[in-house]
Formats: sequence, C-alpha cells, structure tokens
Amino acid sequence: MSTIKFERNTLFEQFMDVRNFSEQISSPLSIEDYVVQSMPDVSPTKWHLAHSSWFFEAFVLEKFDVNYKSVHPQYNYLFNSYYTQVGERHCRPKRGLISRPTVEQVYKYREYVNNKIEDFFSDSSNKDFEKHAPVVEIGIHHERQHQELMLTDIKNVFSENPLKPVYMELPASSSNGKIPTANWVSYPEGLYEIGHADNSFSYDNEMPKHKIFLGSFNLSSRLVTNKEYIEFIEDGGYKRAELWLSDGIYTVEDSGWEAPLYWEKIDNKWHHFTLSGFKEVEANQPVCHVSFYEADAYARWIDARLPAEAEWEIASADLIIEGNFVESGVYNPISLGGNSKSSSLAQMFGDVWEWTSSPYICYPGYKTLPGALGEYNGKFMSNQMVLRGGSCATSISHIRKTYRNFFPPDSRWQFMGIRLARDE
Amino acid sequence: MSTIKFERNTLFEQFMDVRNFSEQISSPLSIEDYVVQSMPDVSPTKWHLAHSSWFFEAFVLEKFDVNYKSVHPQYNYLFNSYYTQVGERHCRPKRGLISRPTVEQVYKYREYVNNKIEDFFSDSSNKDFEKHAPVVEIGIHHERQHQELMLTDIKNVFSENPLKPVYMELPASSSNGKIPTANWVSYPEGLYEIGHADNSFSYDNEMPKHKIFLGSFNLSSRLVTNKEYIEFIEDGGYKRAELWLSDGIYTVEDSGWEAPLYWEKIDNKWHHFTLSGFKEVEANQPVCHVSFYEADAYARWIDARLPAEAEWEIASADLIIEGNFVESGVYNPISLGGNSKSSSLAQMFGDVWEWTSSPYICYPGYKTLPGALGEYNGKFMSNQMVLRGGSCATSISHIRKTYRNFFPPDSRWQFMGIRLARDE
Amino acid sequence: MSTIKFERNTLFEQFMDVRNFSEQISSPLSIEDYVVQSMPDVSPTKWHLAHSSWFFEAFVLEKFDVNYKSVHPQYNYLFNSYYTQVGERHCRPKRGLISRPTVEQVYKYREYVNNKIEDFFSDSSNKDFEKHAPVVEIGIHHERQHQELMLTDIKNVFSENPLKPVYMELPASSSNGKIPTANWVSYPEGLYEIGHADNSFSYDNEMPKHKIFLGSFNLSSRLVTNKEYIEFIEDGGYKRAELWLSDGIYTVEDSGWEAPLYWEKIDNKWHHFTLSGFKEVEANQPVCHVSFYEADAYARWIDARLPAEAEWEIASADLIIEGNFVESGVYNPISLGGNSKSSSLAQMFGDVWEWTSSPYICYPGYKTLPGALGEYNGKFMSNQMVLRGGSCATSISHIRKTYRNFFPPDSRWQFMGIRLARDE
Amino acid sequence: MSTIKFERNTLFEQFMDVRNFSEQISSPLSIEDYVVQSMPDVSPTKWHLAHSSWFFEAFVLEKFDVNYKSVHPQYNYLFNSYYTQVGERHCRPKRGLISRPTVEQVYKYREYVNNKIEDFFSDSSNKDFEKHAPVVEIGIHHERQHQELMLTDIKNVFSENPLKPVYMELPASSSNGKIPTANWVSYPEGLYEIGHADNSFSYDNEMPKHKIFLGSFNLSSRLVTNKEYIEFIEDGGYKRAELWLSDGIYTVEDSGWEAPLYWEKIDNKWHHFTLSGFKEVEANQPVCHVSFYEADAYARWIDARLPAEAEWEIASADLIIEGNFVESGVYNPISLGGNSKSSSLAQMFGDVWEWTSSPYICYPGYKTLPGALGEYNGKFMSNQMVLRGGSCATSISHIRKTYRNFFPPDSRWQFMGIRLARDE
Repeated sequence: MSTIKFERNTLFEQFMDVRNFSEQISSPLSIEDYVVQSMPDVSPTKWHLAHSSWFFEAFVLEKFDVNYKSVHPQYNYLFNSYYTQVGERHCRPKRGLISRPTVEQVYKYREYVNNKIEDFFSDSSNKDFEKHAPVVEIGIHHERQHQELMLTDIKNVFSENPLKPVYMELPASSSNGKIPTANWVSYPEGLYEIGHADNSFSYDNEMPKHKIFLGSFNLSSRLVTNKEYIEFIEDGGYKRAELWLSDGIYTVEDSGWEAPLYWEKIDNKWHHFTLSGFKEVEANQPVCHVSFYEADAYARWIDARLPAEAEWEIASADLIIEGNFVESGVYNPISLGGNSKSSSLAQMFGDVWEWTSSPYICYPGYKTLPGALGEYNGKFMSNQMVLRGGSCATSISHIRKTYRNFFPPDSRWQFMGIRLARDE
Repeated sequence: MSTIKFERNTLFEQFMDVRNFSEQISSPLSIEDYVVQSMPDVSPTKWHLAHSSWFFEAFVLEKFDVNYKSVHPQYNYLFNSYYTQVGERHCRPKRGLISRPTVEQVYKYREYVNNKIEDFFSDSSNKDFEKHAPVVEIGIHHERQHQELMLTDIKNVFSENPLKPVYMELPASSSNGKIPTANWVSYPEGLYEIGHADNSFSYDNEMPKHKIFLGSFNLSSRLVTNKEYIEFIEDGGYKRAELWLSDGIYTVEDSGWEAPLYWEKIDNKWHHFTLSGFKEVEANQPVCHVSFYEADAYARWIDARLPAEAEWEIASADLIIEGNFVESGVYNPISLGGNSKSSSLAQMFGDVWEWTSSPYICYPGYKTLPGALGEYNGKFMSNQMVLRGGSCATSISHIRKTYRNFFPPDSRWQFMGIRLARDE
Repeated sequence: MSTIKFERNTLFEQFMDVRNFSEQISSPLSIEDYVVQSMPDVSPTKWHLAHSSWFFEAFVLEKFDVNYKSVHPQYNYLFNSYYTQVGERHCRPKRGLISRPTVEQVYKYREYVNNKIEDFFSDSSNKDFEKHAPVVEIGIHHERQHQELMLTDIKNVFSENPLKPVYMELPASSSNGKIPTANWVSYPEGLYEIGHADNSFSYDNEMPKHKIFLGSFNLSSRLVTNKEYIEFIEDGGYKRAELWLSDGIYTVEDSGWEAPLYWEKIDNKWHHFTLSGFKEVEANQPVCHVSFYEADAYARWIDARLPAEAEWEIASADLIIEGNFVESGVYNPISLGGNSKSSSLAQMFGDVWEWTSSPYICYPGYKTLPGALGEYNGKFMSNQMVLRGGSCATSISHIRKTYRNFFPPDSRWQFMGIRLARDE
Repeated sequence: MSTIKFERNTLFEQFMDVRNFSEQISSPLSIEDYVVQSMPDVSPTKWHLAHSSWFFEAFVLEKFDVNYKSVHPQYNYLFNSYYTQVGERHCRPKRGLISRPTVEQVYKYREYVNNKIEDFFSDSSNKDFEKHAPVVEIGIHHERQHQELMLTDIKNVFSENPLKPVYMELPASSSNGKIPTANWVSYPEGLYEIGHADNSFSYDNEMPKHKIFLGSFNLSSRLVTNKEYIEFIEDGGYKRAELWLSDGIYTVEDSGWEAPLYWEKIDNKWHHFTLSGFKEVEANQPVCHVSFYEADAYARWIDARLPAEAEWEIASADLIIEGNFVESGVYNPISLGGNSKSSSLAQMFGDVWEWTSSPYICYPGYKTLPGALGEYNGKFMSNQMVLRGGSCATSISHIRKTYRNFFPPDSRWQFMGIRLARDE
C-alpha cells in the first residue's frame, strides 16, 4: 500500500475507473460465457466480478461499518477466494457449478458495493478515511489483477469450445516487416539495490528494498519470437530430455505438450487460438503461453539462460514504462517495430510476462500486512517462479519495475514469454 | 419402435407435445442454469435441449433429405451423445465448458428442427413417411427420456449451490396421515412370459417376449418409506459391512455415504434438497435417491431381498398404469394415501424407479436395431442394474410394464427407491 | 460343504495332499519371488501360503479350541483376506510391502497349523469332529483355489520383469498338427434344472438346484484358438467401437489394449509370456488371457454370442470331467488333438475358464453359510461375470460341472478364454 | 570432482571401504527385506546395491574398456536411475516388482564390478588412470549417498509392517539430562563468499564460489527438540492455516498429517518408529522427519524463520565437522549433551539435515559436468529446497560445509529437522 496522504476525489475516481473497466471487459460476453470454469486455475467471469466486489466488503466496508450487511449472507462464503482468516470459502474447482447468483444479480451486487464505497468516500470522518483509504487502494490494484485474469480465463474457456468463439474482432495486424536482431545488452558486476521503497503503492512482496550482489550479466535486447521458438520445436526440442529440467520433461510427457498452449498445426502450419479468433501464428510476434519449463529448455537449447529477477529489475532502472498493455485493446503480444534500436532493451513492459530464473520467495526482512490481508502474497511463496514486466492483458496503471508476478512452473494460460540472459 | 401404421396428424401432434414440454420444463430456469454440468453423469439443460433436436436431425432429417444442412456444421460434433457410428463427438465430462451456442441459439436450433420435421410431415411421400415415421416415434420417446434427465440433472446442479435455488415453489404437502402397513402379496411358481410383443412402441431391449420359469415369490404391497429407511441408518446400517455387497461397502467408505443423496442432518433431524427447496424429510414419503447398493443392504438388513425384474413385470400384469408422474408437477415422491388397500400392490408406477436384483443384460434372442440406432440400448449391457416402474419425473406417456431402465449400482441422482421381495 | 459323513483318515489325507501341493507349486521360486505383488489383484506367494493356513486357524482351530494361540498375534490381521466378521485386516494393495514374516517363518507357520490340524484329527471327539470336519473340507477347497492364484499371480509378477524369469522349463509342444473344425452342437428348448443338490461338496453359490427355462441353443464344439483370435485383431477388432460393449471399448482405450494380456508383437509375429518363458504364440492353442469384454466383442464380430452359464451347465451334463488341468504340469492351454471328434463338445474342462454371458448373481432361494464363512461367495455378487469349466491351473479334484467362478469383466490375468454359442 | 592428482592405492582403498560399507549396512536384513519398495521415493535395498555398482560400469568401466561386458545385458536397463543419456531405464515406481536378479546375484554383480575396478587400478596406463580416477571418486561419493538412502528407505519399508521389524537393537539412550537453552548467535551484514573452490572433491552444484550480500542475521545455537515441537502440535499448529504456506496447509489436509512422519500417539504419549524399534519419543532429541512445510510453519509459529543456505554456510565457516553421523551406529538424532556451550552453534553437522529457506537453484555461473554425469544434480533444480549439514545416516566422510542436499518441500522420510534463524 501507499504511505502517501490520499485525496478523496482522486481515489474515488480511480475506484470508479477500475470498477467500470471490469464491466467494459465483460461487455462482449453472452450471459452463458460468464458461468464457465474450464480448469481449476480459471474462474468464471461472474466470479471475478463478484469476488473483486467482495474484497471491498470484507476489507473496507465491514471494517468501516460494523453493521454493514451484504446483499446475501452466503456471498461471503461464495466469493472469498483464499483468505482463511475471513472464514470458510467455497471450493475453488467448483466455481463453475454455481449458476446463481445470476449475472444480473452480480451486477446489482457490484452496484450495491459501489454505492456503499461512495458513501464511505462522502461520509467517513477524516480519521476513518485515512484508516481505510489505503485498503481501498489495495482493492483497486486487486481488481486490476482480476481484470487480467478475466481476459486470460475467458480465453481459456473459449479455447475449449469447438465453435472457437471470438471475444473481439480485430483488424489484421501488418506484420510483414522485419524486426531488429536480438543483441546482448551488458551490465557490470556490482552491489545493487532492488525492491520498493518510496511512499507510492506496492504490494508487500516488493519490500523491503535491499542490497544484492550481482555478477556481470547480459540481457537480450528483445523477446524470443514465434519464429525462433518454432526452430526449437523443429529441432526436436520437446523430445530431447537433456534440454529440460527433470520436472519439466515429465510434465511434457504427461501432458503431451508439443508446442505452446493454444497452438495447433494445420496443413503443416502452426495456428493458435487468440481472443480475436483462431489464426495462423505470426513469425515475429513474441512467443507466448509457454511455461517456465519451456522457457528454461529453450534457453538451454540456445546456450543461454533466463534472467534472475534482480537482473531484470536492475536492467529496467533507466527505462520508461511503455508498451503493449491492455489499454491498446489488442489482447495479444505484437511484433517489435522494424525501426526499434537493437542496441537497447525493447519490449521490457507489456506484451508478455517474462519468466525469470528466480523462485518466488520473500525478500530479506519481509513483513506481511497484518490480518487477513497478510495472506495476499506471502503464503504463496513456494513452488512458484517470478515473472516480470506485465503483459498485453495488464493495465499500464498496474505495472511497476518492482512488480513481482508469480506462477507455478507448469502454468501456461497467462500471457507468458521469454527473454534470454547470459553471463557474458 | 411400433409396427403399427402411423397417422400423420396424430404423430405430429405427439411430436409437438413432447417438443413443447421440454421447453416448459426449462421455463423456470435462468439462462445461467442452462450451462452448468455438476458431475460427468449430468448434462447441462442447454445440451439436453440441443441433443434431443440433433437426434431428429441425425436419424430422420439427414436420412430423409441427403441435402439436409444443420444450423451449424459443428452441432453434429457437439450434440451427439454416444453414437459412434454417427461420427466423433464432444467429450461427455466437458459439456459444462461450452458456453456457446447460447440458450437463445439453442432455442432457434429447436425451432429450425421443428420446422424441418413439420416439412417432413407435410411434404414426404407415403413411402418416405412410412420409412421414417417409426424413427420420429423413437425420437419422441428419446426426448421424453431426456425430459426426465433434465429434471434430475438440474436438481443435482442446484444441490451444489449453497444458495439452494428453488426450481419451483410448491404448496406444502399434508402428510400427517397414516399410511397402510406393508403386506406381502404372493405369486405362485410357474412358467411365465415377459417382454414386449404387440405392435405398440417399445425399445429393442424389451424384446423378444420369452418364457421364463419363476419360483413362488412375494412383493411388498408398497415402497419403503423414509421413516423405515431412517431406522436402518440409526441401526448403524452404513457401518455394518456384513449387510453389504463388497463393492457396496467400498463405495460407502470411499464416498463417505451416511444417508441417501441430498440428505443432511440438521439439529438432529434429517433434511433433504428437493426441486422445491431444502426441507425436512417426511416420514411417510418413499425413500429416494438411494443406490442399488443401499437398496440391497436395506433389504438384507430387514431379511428380505429385491425383486427380480421378471417378478416385477409379472406382478404388474393386472395393474392399471397410474401414479405420481411428472404430469402431477410435484417432482418428488409422495406419501401413499391412508385409504389405500394394503392387500394389493400400490405405488408400482411413478414416485420412484424401483431397483431390481437383475443385472441389465439382453433377453434371449435379442436383436439390436440396424445402424447407429442399435447403439441406443444394447451397448450398455454390462455393470448396470434394471429398474422398473417410472418415477415422479417420468411422463405417464413414456412408461410401460415392460420398460427396462438401467443404471450402475452406485447411481443415486435419479429418483430411485426400494420395493422389497421375498421367497415366501 | 458336503453333507456326507466324513471319514477321519481320508479327510486328513486330502488335507495333507493339498497342503503339500501348495509347497510343491512354490518350490521352483527364489525367496525374492515370494514377496512381490505386481498389481492389487495379485498377492505375493508368501501371502497365499500364509493366508491358506490362517483360514484353518480362523475357521477350524479357533472354533475347536477356545485357547488356541497362533504363532504371532498379528497374523490374524496380516493374513485375513476379506472376512470382515473376523476382524480388521491389512490393506490388500499393500501386501507387497510386507517383507516379514520371512518365507522361512511362513513355512514354519504352515507346519504349526498342520500339526494343530493333525491334533484335531487325532484328538477330537466324534461330536467335535462332525462339527468341524465340513469346515476342514472347505479349507481344502479354499487352498485349491489359492493354488490356482499362486500360479496366475507368479505369472503376472514374472511378466513385469524384463529378465523374463522362467517358472518351469517345459519341452516344446508339438503343435504342427491340424485341429478339428469348430461345429455347432445343438440343444433343444426346455425346462431344465441347474445347480448342486447331492451331498457331495459344493460352494454355497452353486445351490439350490432350481428349474430354469431355456430356448434352444448351440455351443461350439471347441474353444476359439489363437489363430482365430488373431484374425479378429487383424480385422481391426480392437479399433471398431461397434463391436464392443460401451464399458469394453472405454477399457480398451484407457488401457491401450491391442491384444490379449502378455502378448507382444515382435518382427511381425505375436509372442506371449508363459510360465515356461517368452515364446511365439501357437496358432492352434486356445486363446487365453482375454477379458469378458474381448470375449464378447470377438463373439459379436463373428456373429455369435457367449453361452449363458445355464447353457454351459446343461451341455456339460453327459460329459466326463477330463482335460488339461494343473496336474498335467503344462501351465498353459494346449491344442486340441487332431483326432478329436468335431461333432461333440471338446475342451469343456481345463485349459481355460470359459467366459459366459451371465452376470454373477445368486440362484433363486440362495442362502449364505452362517457367520463369517457366509462372506466366502455371496458378497461378491455384483459387477462380475461367471466363468465355467476350470483351467490349466485348476486341480481336477477342484472342478465340478456346477462350479461358478467369477471375475470382473476387465480381468485378464487368469487363464480365461472363449467358447462361442448361438441361438440356432 | 577433485582436481588433485589421485594416488592409486589411496583411491582404491576408499573404493573398497565404501563398497564394503554398503554390504555392512545390508547385513542385518533378511533376503525378503531387500525386495520391497514402500513408496515411489523409496528403492529396494537390492536396487541400491546394484545401482551403485552400475554407476561404476556406466561411467568408468565402459569408458575405460570399449569391450566391457556386464554380467547381464538387461542390467543397464534395470539399474540406471535417471540418466537419460545412458539409455532407456526401468520405471522408478516399479522397482519393487522385480524379484530377479536375486540378492545373491546382486552380490555377485557387486563382486564382478569390484574385480573389474581392481583391474582398472592395477592395469590402467597413467593417462587412462588420470582420465577415469575422478569419476571413480564421484562413484564413491555417489555410493555414500545411496548408503544414506538405504537406511532411510529400509526404515520406511519396515514402518509399513505391522510387525514393526527392528533393523538393529540399540542400548537405551540416557537422555534424562538437561540440554542447554537455545540462544541466538549473531552474524553481521556483509559481502560474503559461498561455494566450493579448492581442488578437493565437491559436486558441481556447490560451484562456483561466488560473492553474496547478506544482511545481519542470527542462528539458533541448537536444533529444535521434540519437546518444543510437541508444544507446536498442542497449540493446534497443524490446524491453523495462518501459520502455513498455502501449499503446506493443503498437503497437511490432503495427507492427514498431525505430527512428524512415523509418529503415533498411544495412551496420550507420542511414540515413533525408529530403526531400533517402536519407542516413546524422547523430549530432548532433535525433532526429525518433518517436511519443509512443517519446519516453515513451526518457525512462523515461534516468530522466527528458517536460515537461508548462505547464512548456514557462512555460520559454519569456523566450525569443526563433527557430530552424530552414520559411523556412530545410532541411526537416530541424539540429545545435545547438557554441558554443551549454549553460546556457540551446536549440532550443525550430523543428527538431521537442516531445512533452509532457499529453493534449490544453480549458483551464478554454474556449469554442469559434460555428458550424462551432467544430469547428476542440475536437472533437479526446480520445486526443491536446500538442506544442509548431514544427518545421523550420513557418513562424516561425505559431508562438506558447502554440501547442498535437496528435497521437495513435502518430503519427510529423510532424517530432516529444524534450526531457527531470525533477522536480529
């Protein structure tokens, strides 16, 4: 959370922006689309819309007003995701079995919560406002995270349907051009600092700022492309155990992976399912929907490695945060322009989350938030890997250089890709 | 199928009746309710509505008109249930992942099929009509079967929801009265005949009519009630291995069964989820939602047995088909009236399907229908048990004395109950 | 059990014969071979040797002498198979995790039990002897059953080992000769009787003798051979869903079956693992190690069916029990001699258990034995099919015309084969 | 591997020592004990004895002599553990299904390999010796690792047996005394170096030596004891989700954990299964057989944390390697003597492997060994945690301050315990 002093109007505007954007994301859907859960990792759109509202109830409204009553006493049970200190919750893999509340009722629930938050903004004492405003801010960031999941989850739901529904038609991209060669950008050995320190917003897991010693390293100037990744496939990459971590090759064999998620070979050409339909894979777009295991194996194949998260953060220090975010409305990574300079880092933000070689553990001196909000990040610090930089489904208002995203090494349904590193 | 000569108007009226009734059953649902599949045995309502339409396409319209085109080329893939000879089909346990076609599109699909069938009735030559009318009749019976599944499946879907949705509010039943004592009705040893023979409709698995020798036997004059079954529970029935088949007690232990499906003990009283809400169990209603294993264990506990299907059929010979069917609109078994005669068989039809001791195998001399329709019944003749008599979710127009329903011995989500038998 | 009067010397001789034969069967094994359990259905040889001894303790010695003490208080827990009324028992799939008692200790345990039974024979009063002798007789038959399992289980254990151990070297069979054509032997419609009635030994599930009406039927004069079954394989039998029961084709697909158990194609020739090593399949030997599903599909493919168990029993009425049993020491089905008469039934006994079309359920009027022995047969009467006639691993002293063996329809590790039937 | 010059006699002596010690560890076993695999992580003793011999064949003898022939052509298949570059290998979870080769044959195999290695020592040219001696050294260390597994695996096998076999009777320990209070030993912030650098032996994963910045930290002067851990249990530790990582509490719930592995509460007292039998838990012994999840939750409960592996290594710098190793013949952690100084670190070596907070990943600049030996460590660098210090089943000749052991966070069957750390 931030430690700045909040301004009522500004914060409420941010609140309403994020609330409206969730509904904008949902607007192309049919009612039926809101209900489905295609795998345990995925939640129905309806659930995301309700859960992000519940968050404001559980962590702001009920703290602010002890007499607060939700629309329905069971919503606390249905829409709590994983906060054990807030009480029992509905079993995650069964979210797709719940047809009620209906979509209409969920929208009414959202409106109810919005009104109550509006009351909080207009009626709270300064003392109360200062106490709860930082949690409203967390709720805003929390909903931004769920907006990204709404897009990746509906992509997964639609991908299961042989009718191949289209979330949003998009004009064909003009990707015939060349893209710059990948070059190594080098960074010297040294004692660096990473982590969040100023009074702007961050999650607890980005703190504290701390010293870290790094040897010299190089990062690739751009992301790995589909064309480059297809070379790995065609070189037998998925069959050659020596390129993989042991857990990785077992996953490949058990799951029958032969290419990134959503890829299918038709008439000897790779196609993939996107939010704007089923299309041929474009050579120069960044490869996407690969797991950590695939990213790691690709790097080993080409005699490189993945960056450590500290390396990524150090390298990002002088960059401006710009790129292909959700605001561009493309919902897919895009090719790097042919006139990008190949001597500096490109595509560090947006397009795809970049797998790092760093397991997700706490920074030295890490403290969780008090109470149930302490469960937000800390309890997931095992068996996951850090990703950096945001994706085409992330809001530019959500990303930070210190932002630590994390997923299990076999996850593929997020927009996840590969940037290479090497020692020298 | 029937071997009678069909009359165009009558058959078309039956067709439209059954088509309309499916939509009447669906009418209390919200759009979201049509989408959910709560377990692999259950199908979404949307799927039932589409599949029963596809049946007419695959087995009538496409045979009648070689140029017939469905609304969408993928519907044949999505809405084929298990007819391998009609081509590839969508994986059954994944029916709940398919949000499109939408409910509205499914209703349009139904209308499209209805219109095409109407064309068949109005335009077909006599020769064509005579050829395809018997299959229309099968399709009508097929849709009746799916109407029963629509009710049992939506009950299962709703039961998963902590909000306990109500399908249809019903006036409270007046069940304070007494019910008649259960008496044994006896039948002599003899060489009998069972099976279907005349030219009215039946499924292939009810034929041929054949001789069977039966020793003398007794059937209970009425169904086992909730009160009687609770005595079994309270006597430790679910814990006493010696009362159970070996597969049965393993199922009990693996599944944690302690009572019939949908039952829950609250404040020391048994309640159950019904299509009209969550209610206290009524003592005199027939026990329902028990598996074959539970029916068999209950019978052993009380020193009786389940009837063989032939015994049930012989005993039904002189009875009129009447009872609590779907047409009564109760969707739950009801108590036997206090003034029923206890000396003759009651509740043989409707209320609950009655588990028999007979594994579902073919009758001697059984022949399947030619082509894909031969898959309708014959290929399920292993690991299932026969049930007789229809239930409160069956249409009276669908049941016959020779009707053989069948489910695996651990199934509970149909309206299934217990009638006792003994040798003498 | 028998209802005859037992003669002490004769029964004790039978007892010692069966006890010695178990040890003779084990004698070719290394100590390590006694320990392994290759799948849940299989038990280690060590366990069979101990369990068949425990049976005499639990059902004879402890009843005869209330002060009876076993060698170790835990043996009752370790070596009870499934008799819930005798107390808790060790989990079946974990039998292969138990290295102690050692093989030497198990042999001592057997000797201990033998001595105590010898004491029973020498010391019991006539009243006691008459009471317990029938249970000794059951124990003898019980051990015969386990002798068959010892052979089928060690075959399964050895088949898992890439070293392909040989249980017993056998001289090559001379099978170049012809075998008789299969002919249909016909039986008229009629009211027959099946089941056991006289005072000789039978299991409870063979009783009571009862009337049954059968239509006219035909049985094939001999078993289906490997050559005939290979034609089914080569005709795409395992890929053609229309030939299979629904449960059958799912099993084929889930398990990847392409041929009988133990078969492997090498250099385009079918080989199989046998107790005398890994060998080429012989054309004229009866096909073996097929499931009910495969037997049923084969029959459908060739436009026949499997016999009902009553048909098999009626057909066996005039035959002498003779054939290739365990006493022949071949441990594999053998080719029918070229000079057999093709007009009468051959191979009805021995060689392979013959799958019938009859689910394993009780006969009308069936009563289980009192107490824990009532668990011997009755509680398995669901989801299994009857097999008839004994196999090359059965003792001729164990088989009867009324003998009902039973296994689940997907079982293959017993010596199981196919005899065809048809209606006319 | 070492980079020193090897001396033939010394290395051969080390070789024979380690080979003999494996057989000494096996000597208390019955032949049956060698065969069993109690879970996929466990291997049969017989397999360990053969696999450690195969290692010398695959990596020394076959490289040294192109005409080398093993005792049996299938041994390369049966006894390869996971080296994909050496060829296909037998499926790990099926090691317990293989009764042959017999124990006697495995001992002959060991002797055969010993003789061939002796030939290598006596007959190799200096050039050949220098080339292969470093791999012999790896093989020696490899066999030491398997000796530890032989003990932990046979403990697991015996623990499954209700007879509770005793591996080795031991005199009762005198543990009535007090043990020193746990104190915090502090270390200043600084730029340190960790990893292996000199020319003595290490595994590749301990290299390269590299700089790392650490904040100030404290380590507890001794291990957590059973008494202290029981307080955690009695405080509801296993039920309080807020103390656990999310993966941890799911594991607890799925697995039904209520205490460390091998613990059982009898008459309200905790007992545990040990290699010298089933005994009451001793209060002052280090707690053992806990997973990373339990170690982490215990630390959170007591408001501390686990040490990072770098912290552990820095703290060990000035210590002498001494403690309760396998050479003491106790096979269980022992209580700290009452007269230990509580101001310095005790129990850093031996007794139990100490879980660290560090995921097992490569050091910066890590290079694997060339060829199949490169699979020894590197490919396991995901989803595992580092443990340090060796245990009561480790040889003192095997441990190093830089030694990185690693296991998945839910593993418990090794001798694993807890040392606490905190920031200040």
